[in-house]
Amino acid sequence: MIFRQLKKADSAMARLGRLYTRHGPVETPVFMPVGTQASVKSVTPGELYELGAGIILGNTYHLYLRPGHRLIEAMGGLHKFMNWHLPILTDSGGFQVYSLSQSRKIQEEGVLFRSHVDGSMHMLTPELAIEIQEALGADVMMCLDTCIPFPADRQQIIDSTNLTTRWARRCLDARTRGDLLLFAIVQGGMERELRCSHTEQLLGMGFDGYALGGLSVGEPKELLFEMIACSRPMIPPGFPVYVMGVGLPEDLVECVDLGVDMFDCVIPTRNARNGMLFTSFGHIVIKNARFAQDQGPVDPECSCYTCRNYSRAYLRHLFMAKELLSYRLNTIHNLYYYLNLMAEMRTALAMDRFREFKRDFYSKRQ
Amino acid sequence: MIFRQLKKADSAMARLGRLYTRHGPVETPVFMPVGTQASVKSVTPGELYELGAGIILGNTYHLYLRPGHRLIEAMGGLHKFMNWHLPILTDSGGFQVYSLSQSRKIQEEGVLFRSHVDGSMHMLTPELAIEIQEALGADVMMCLDTCIPFPADRQQIIDSTNLTTRWARRCLDARTRGDLLLFAIVQGGMERELRCSHTEQLLGMGFDGYALGGLSVGEPKELLFEMIACSRPMIPPGFPVYVMGVGLPEDLVECVDLGVDMFDCVIPTRNARNGMLFTSFGHIVIKNARFAQDQGPVDPECSCYTCRNYSRAYLRHLFMAKELLSYRLNTIHNLYYYLNLMAEMRTALAMDRFREFKRDFYSKRQ
Repeated sequence: MIFRQLKKADSAMARLGRLYTRHGPVETPVFMPVGTQASVKSVTPGELYELGAGIILGNTYHLYLRPGHRLIEAMGGLHKFMNWHLPILTDSGGFQVYSLSQSRKIQEEGVLFRSHVDGSMHMLTPELAIEIQEALGADVMMCLDTCIPFPADRQQIIDSTNLTTRWARRCLDARTRGDLLLFAIVQGGMERELRCSHTEQLLGMGFDGYALGGLSVGEPKELLFEMIACSRPMIPPGFPVYVMGVGLPEDLVECVDLGVDMFDCVIPTRNARNGMLFTSFGHIVIKNARFAQDQGPVDPECSCYTCRNYSRAYLRHLFMAKELLSYRLNTIHNLYYYLNLMAEMRTALAMDRFREFKRDFYSKRQ
Repeated sequence: MIFRQLKKADSAMARLGRLYTRHGPVETPVFMPVGTQASVKSVTPGELYELGAGIILGNTYHLYLRPGHRLIEAMGGLHKFMNWHLPILTDSGGFQVYSLSQSRKIQEEGVLFRSHVDGSMHMLTPELAIEIQEALGADVMMCLDTCIPFPADRQQIIDSTNLTTRWARRCLDARTRGDLLLFAIVQGGMERELRCSHTEQLLGMGFDGYALGGLSVGEPKELLFEMIACSRPMIPPGFPVYVMGVGLPEDLVECVDLGVDMFDCVIPTRNARNGMLFTSFGHIVIKNARFAQDQGPVDPECSCYTCRNYSRAYLRHLFMAKELLSYRLNTIHNLYYYLNLMAEMRTALAMDRFREFKRDFYSKRQ
């Protein structure tokens, strides 16, 4: 068994579930902190565990370029290399090739790109994406997909989506390890009909789980939710559903309501390093002068290490002084907020109180 | 009682002691990690405590400029502000005015300087140095002294040293809190006779402890030890002796042998961030390519968190990728090395085995 739906909300798609991996089960809905270069920036695996992270994400593109997947494999795999012994999901590298490499060219064979680290040329193919992820030993691997910009014309969406399907097939064929799960990525741009047909095609090919990709690329929020709402119900209850790169706390709540099980996003960690802290009543910008002599914690309702031990005044000082501890204490707070939010949603689902949870969540922010 | 000499080595000045402060006792000889801006860079107070730090140092110059001593006082003092509840020693700000400010002018009244943070002009007087340190609530305060470059001519040394004496008197007079210890700083350049007469003068004025200052300013190692060897024996056993800004592990061993009780230095923390790691057999530079696939710990004899959990290969990767965790894991290792070295010296002194300790220390490094 790969995924078990434990409980479904009466009035919505929201559900409680469990994803089974070779590094143990993951309770869903789940948020995966992003550990781009074999490290969730500024925090240790022990801290992640204490924060309640049940699975983290690694970036294939970065690890392929530095230190290299063969090196990590020789070191015993990504888990051992970075000292994290719960599940890891890796992306395919595709999205970061599109967004980070200095130049890239999509061909039938794969994506030709120039490394942002040393300028060298590489070809990322579906086969290489699987080879890298198998070498890393990812519990969940992702198929290489194409990234469709927003807006895009219909023909471009059709062509890209079809290429994604052919690449998904090649990923299935390239896979040599059955103990590592493989998820396909639904594309289809912002066209309902193309999303639906792509979902159907991929379902027919038999993957372990399905991601809804090509979202959070600049489209209005309504379109994001509409795209999820159209493909999500097509996926049978026995498969995990993952929305990539989403998002803000309210996006997670809405997506869970639409039946999404898995999330990843750099927002909590990146924004922490920029001094933006999430709280139960909205967010605060810690460098704001009004916090200079504020003895209170970031969020009086939060029981994270940062809120239990440090004042807003101290956190503001660390941020202004560019102290390394600033990034870490802020990251701990934001990850705690996100992971605790997911835990609260799981509890609400278990207790058949998701509606009440959602009402309370929004009422605090007003 | 301020300081108790618990045990003295038979054949040397080396001794075991205890410094009493309002935040509890400190076992000596002791190394004080440097927490410049109310943070020992990259680590939490909890980590410092677990590493065995018994006292840390704060920098008056930095805290005065940002966030300001009055702000820290309003927040309940430096201990509460930074969440560190063991003793803190603060420097006088003098040394950093000399080394960091964009321009400075020494006058009888004090030092006029331009802030490196915002370019504003300030006058640091002996009275202000005490006012700042009392506002911070430092367990041990330092007198404002002058900094004599190396080399310097005899008249310059005499003039500077005499000014340091007059400033020390003004510090004593400015002090309003008897619960905060106040140490004077011996100057005298690299002239034995001037060092001796200055030590005598300061001893006559009645401080709680004595620092040997103006050392580690570029002089040959022999001169450093010679200057310590000439003033140190003049200081009665009931006073703690502190050598400022020293140094490498072997310097600490030699200085302990000469009877020094207290040390501070940025070397373990700064060098950690530059990838230089101390080990029982010398130091290593972690970015060296030969560590790329090295599965062993930094130091097989070390039991710090970093060595227990991460390989040299991973630490090299983090360093090359400029990951924030690199600075932290390296800092933890280096501080552990320094603090453990001091603990080993204290144990050796307690067991009358300091000679043997020193022999073993050097034999491992060959």
